[in-house]
Amino acid sequence: MSGWVIIAGLGPGRESCITPEVMAAIAQATDIVGYIPYVRRIAPRAGLTLHESDNRVELDRARHALQMAADGRRVVVVSSGDPGVFAMASAVFEALEAGDATWRALDVRVLPGITAMLAASAAAGAPLGHDFCAINLSDNLKPWDLIEKRLRLAVEADFAMGFYNPRSKARPDGFARVLDVLREGCAPERLLIFARAVSTPEQKIDVVRLAEATPEMADMRTVVLVGSSQTRLIERAGDPIVYTPRSVS
Amino acid sequence: MSGWVIIAGLGPGRESCITPEVMAAIAQATDIVGYIPYVRRIAPRAGLTLHESDNRVELDRARHALQMAADGRRVVVVSSGDPGVFAMASAVFEALEAGDATWRALDVRVLPGITAMLAASAAAGAPLGHDFCAINLSDNLKPWDLIEKRLRLAVEADFAMGFYNPRSKARPDGFARVLDVLREGCAPERLLIFARAVSTPEQKIDVVRLAEATPEMADMRTVVLVGSSQTRLIERAGDPIVYTPRSVS
Repeated sequence: MSGWVIIAGLGPGRESCITPEVMAAIAQATDIVGYIPYVRRIAPRAGLTLHESDNRVELDRARHALQMAADGRRVVVVSSGDPGVFAMASAVFEALEAGDATWRALDVRVLPGITAMLAASAAAGAPLGHDFCAINLSDNLKPWDLIEKRLRLAVEADFAMGFYNPRSKARPDGFARVLDVLREGCAPERLLIFARAVSTPEQKIDVVRLAEATPEMADMRTVVLVGSSQTRLIERAGDPIVYTPRSVS
Repeated sequence: MSGWVIIAGLGPGRESCITPEVMAAIAQATDIVGYIPYVRRIAPRAGLTLHESDNRVELDRARHALQMAADGRRVVVVSSGDPGVFAMASAVFEALEAGDATWRALDVRVLPGITAMLAASAAAGAPLGHDFCAINLSDNLKPWDLIEKRLRLAVEADFAMGFYNPRSKARPDGFARVLDVLREGCAPERLLIFARAVSTPEQKIDVVRLAEATPEMADMRTVVLVGSSQTRLIERAGDPIVYTPRSVS
């Protein structure tokens, strides 16, 4: 039997967001590889080996998956959200490119998933309904100056924005700096959405104006969305709706 | 019975990309509203009325959906891809904000879907695996100068990019201009992906260098992805893999 690797997106949290093709891949797998909390979302069954690994060992995990596929196993690498957005797909291809030449002949595929930014956008209305960008605010793998440069240019372009990994214990000050950069280029009324644990039972969506935003509103389970200058708030009895119109006025 | 509107994403094409929560919403609906080819993806059944409408009547369609919900019906507005990305969610909220004040009390929700850009990225590897932006190249609803400005700033920020609606019969020259702008700021080796009819039986993924890209490679069924300066090509016997590494070198 020939092996394969499928890098699959589990979506942001709730089971009803996982696509049928991802469920089918998991049903056919012999091995599941991934970060501990994502592997724990997979139901154990006979014939399926679950390989949990810690954060920050993405390349080891990727090599392990590729080697198992080379040995004839059917491996699903699970990512939260979409595997192609700040997740495992790039790590697997880095490992493949740098690894054994025979790995290039392997059957390696990516199955998309609902990425956190778009689940957060749906939960709030449609704040990313016009041109937008996605920026990973972690400086583990890129210099902080590049993050600031991209932020300033995104503000100048008047993109709506989605921020991944806005804040961690190791980087408590970075997000405060991000808010400073936004305040230099945006009006105090600019709309921000702090979407925590989106699409899980603990989901919490907070809509605030830039003037009221504080660094403590974000943590590593939060995706932050920033509206463009055109983004609007519809007040109503329940949760407000935030959306960006299709036209530029 | 109280009515509702759910704006649901059908994903880019193949049925196995539609999430279970979207299928459940369709199963509970009394009415489906949408652009003709999207409504035709819904299986007819007793008790379900299908309302097809033409392109460019998004606001009429949105008002119709909201009025039916106000009358107690359970309405699903179907979008291709993700409804929050250049699709129906913003149109529904524009209609809601401008419409009858009682509409604000309606139960209106958005269910995300796999957007074309991320399906195209998965099909090609992981070209959007680092910071990226999404730009709608249609100038129906925004001035062309703004599109060019965003393009130039996205190049300066070294974002990977996803372009929606790159070319139509009404705008044959716009995409040629886009390629010119890219050539001013990017090396001739920059990687582009033309993903046509992604995730359908007619899917066609073409990977080319900027130097070889021509306007005719895109049409309205194509999503175009542009790598960042860091994006890499892995050559192999079958289709090549395009990915953007997680680190910036």
